[in-house]
Amino acid sequence: MATKPGIPKGTRDFSPVEMAKRNYIFDTIRKVFHLYGFQQIETPSMENLSTLMGKYGEEGDKLLFKIQNSGDYFSGLTDEELLSRNAAKLASKFCEKGLRYDLTVPFARYVVMHREELTFPFKRFQIQPVWRADRPQKGRYREFYQCDADVVGSNSLLNEVELVQMIDTVFTQFGIRVAIKINNRKILSGIAEIIGEADKIVDITVAIDKLDKIGLDNVNAELASKGIPQEAIDKLQPIIQLSGTNEEKLDTLKQVLAASQTGMKGIEESEFILKTLAGLNIRSEVELDLTLARGLNYYTGAIFEVKALDVQIGSISGGGRYDNLTGVFGMEGVSGVGISFGADRIYDVLNQLDLYPKDASAGTQVLFVNFGEAETAYVLPILAKVRAAGISAEIYPDSAKMKKQMSYANAKAVPFVAIVGENEMQEGKVTLKNMATGEQALITPDELIASF
Amino acid sequence: MATKPGIPKGTRDFSPVEMAKRNYIFDTIRKVFHLYGFQQIETPSMENLSTLMGKYGEEGDKLLFKIQNSGDYFSGLTDEELLSRNAAKLASKFCEKGLRYDLTVPFARYVVMHREELTFPFKRFQIQPVWRADRPQKGRYREFYQCDADVVGSNSLLNEVELVQMIDTVFTQFGIRVAIKINNRKILSGIAEIIGEADKIVDITVAIDKLDKIGLDNVNAELASKGIPQEAIDKLQPIIQLSGTNEEKLDTLKQVLAASQTGMKGIEESEFILKTLAGLNIRSEVELDLTLARGLNYYTGAIFEVKALDVQIGSISGGGRYDNLTGVFGMEGVSGVGISFGADRIYDVLNQLDLYPKDASAGTQVLFVNFGEAETAYVLPILAKVRAAGISAEIYPDSAKMKKQMSYANAKAVPFVAIVGENEMQEGKVTLKNMATGEQALITPDELIASF
Repeated sequence: MATKPGIPKGTRDFSPVEMAKRNYIFDTIRKVFHLYGFQQIETPSMENLSTLMGKYGEEGDKLLFKIQNSGDYFSGLTDEELLSRNAAKLASKFCEKGLRYDLTVPFARYVVMHREELTFPFKRFQIQPVWRADRPQKGRYREFYQCDADVVGSNSLLNEVELVQMIDTVFTQFGIRVAIKINNRKILSGIAEIIGEADKIVDITVAIDKLDKIGLDNVNAELASKGIPQEAIDKLQPIIQLSGTNEEKLDTLKQVLAASQTGMKGIEESEFILKTLAGLNIRSEVELDLTLARGLNYYTGAIFEVKALDVQIGSISGGGRYDNLTGVFGMEGVSGVGISFGADRIYDVLNQLDLYPKDASAGTQVLFVNFGEAETAYVLPILAKVRAAGISAEIYPDSAKMKKQMSYANAKAVPFVAIVGENEMQEGKVTLKNMATGEQALITPDELIASF
Repeated sequence: MATKPGIPKGTRDFSPVEMAKRNYIFDTIRKVFHLYGFQQIETPSMENLSTLMGKYGEEGDKLLFKIQNSGDYFSGLTDEELLSRNAAKLASKFCEKGLRYDLTVPFARYVVMHREELTFPFKRFQIQPVWRADRPQKGRYREFYQCDADVVGSNSLLNEVELVQMIDTVFTQFGIRVAIKINNRKILSGIAEIIGEADKIVDITVAIDKLDKIGLDNVNAELASKGIPQEAIDKLQPIIQLSGTNEEKLDTLKQVLAASQTGMKGIEESEFILKTLAGLNIRSEVELDLTLARGLNYYTGAIFEVKALDVQIGSISGGGRYDNLTGVFGMEGVSGVGISFGADRIYDVLNQLDLYPKDASAGTQVLFVNFGEAETAYVLPILAKVRAAGISAEIYPDSAKMKKQMSYANAKAVPFVAIVGENEMQEGKVTLKNMATGEQALITPDELIASF
């Protein structure tokens, strides 16, 4: 007796209905990427572990899916090494390859390997799955898609402006109302500098990030618990409580950070991005938000994050500027800026708001009922013509009972059923039935084609 | 000093130009699948090894990429087991998951797991990468895409007919002239039965398959070397040398296989498929070809294979009927029939015949030159309007030298460049330059949009 099959935890099958929705998401994003001049690349699912290891921190290394070497991977291992049972250490002997953990490191590797054939600035996008051996939980999977667009080889802030426009275009097309939050790593560095706690920048931003959740008092308490002196916490207050329009926020920051060159640079960058966007009539609100501390160990300039306004869910897109993408692979001085769309969360938001277009399924438009050999012989050439006209169509393959064939049409949500019996054959026509209204019409094949 | 990065052997990066071509292939196939009422699914890249092992023969098991378990995979292993250094045996202790080897076994697993929610006949397609730890060589990769369409839960030969139509539609759309070869496993079984060598069916078909390459004498010699008696080889001659039209071939077979019920059934099936197709005006030639012995351990009825007529290359598509797809997972009696398109070979054929449509790249249509801040401020709202009209457009992000910006346009094969200097700004116009002809025109932004 065969065992009942399952799939690895944290992975998913996608049914036809789910696929249609996912394709709608990916196609929409892909079209916008193209509209802005980004070019698609793909990289292999597996990378050498030497490419991946050490890029995502110690925790990330553990979360890499490693692929066992083929052949005799025990050769060269001593008895002592084997009996040490040191899984982490032996993994490096057993495995040379791993599944990609994100699209950024493979992209950096790609840029370095293909530097001679690329023209910079290089605007690339990439839509591929990534794998993480994370503990699976609601909304967190071990295999999931990332949709990334990055520009490398240009320091111009126009890139930041365009990425925000692109976010706005994507969510406008989805019909999802969003707030686009921007911040700047240089402003955060400036803050740490001004209060004399440069090494505490992570602690400070983590605490500021919690303002919404735990309130001001608890943020201040957390800052104190991290060893930040009261004097510094006092200096931080106008920043933690920053409010008003983007202009007002920038004005406050200019005063507080006047003594920090880095901070003032971050303000200037943010000002340029916000002002330029203000002239471009984008639909989403763009808000300077200092509590935004995404990817802090990574980003060096602008930081973006997108929140859906009508659904309670984490950020559905984000990104930022990073100054040394390819340095780790020996190619220095290549600045990049990019954004990433969270397909799984966008999927949930579109579902909750019921925003999928009704024709997203690309399903069968008309099913021809199968009454037997003679009728089928009459139907098949008509069916070929219908398809040649670009209309998705089927004939039920077996001459099963009418009820079964109609159930099939219903299950596939086929909107029209074409019925051809003796009558229709004699008249050279087909009966077309609208499955929603029940209406029937006796029409010629050409009229049928014209009706779609 | 960072090491120069590489990628695992047998894997590939796909550049923007390659991606555009690959997307053209996948999009074309996907559209045809939809046209015929097939629905897309996706399954996880990793499956439990219990799902994959034993499905592809002993050789296949070795070619599975296995994924190392996370955590302490040494627990429960004795010193003796470890020191045995038995890689094959220990792999099953170290690994519970593997990368999918094809799309068929995951599909069978999918059908069994989702049987309650599926409506049969279920017409599914799937376009995803698969992985095989094969020795890489020219045209053989360790990661490659399969494009499969299958119908399960229907014994009707109309499915076979439609799959052949689908093959014809796909290659007609590509502009690739092909011969579609069909055979039937039951005919081959009938042949083995008639000559009294039922257990030699594999040897016989393998030998027949070599007719083109090694000639009749060598085929006969090979048959003899496999222990097939001269009397049986004599009986095989009309079959090995079968020629003429499909009708003539079937007539000969009817005589030779008259005593074999199975053989006659195969002839009847082939006759139905060929006759029905003959009335449907398909463009490719369809040929009954008994030397076709693809997937013989697997297929139970019709067998298909597609050869490009104008390029020397192996088969570019193939498939067949298999009677017990899901039995191995405990769900008996589900017949299926399917085809698979070989994307990598189709890619090579389209390249060799230069058949890619010129607009397949979906690249930037117009690049706005960047002359500095004032000009950019003037250009950005125009650029937004151009994109809103669905035209892929960019502005060069830095106000670099004209020559550099033009090189960028050339490298990306951008057909038009828009130039905006003081003159244009004063007149409220842009200069649009055709990069192929060098022609320039001073036009309004609306005229620019209308020109695409």
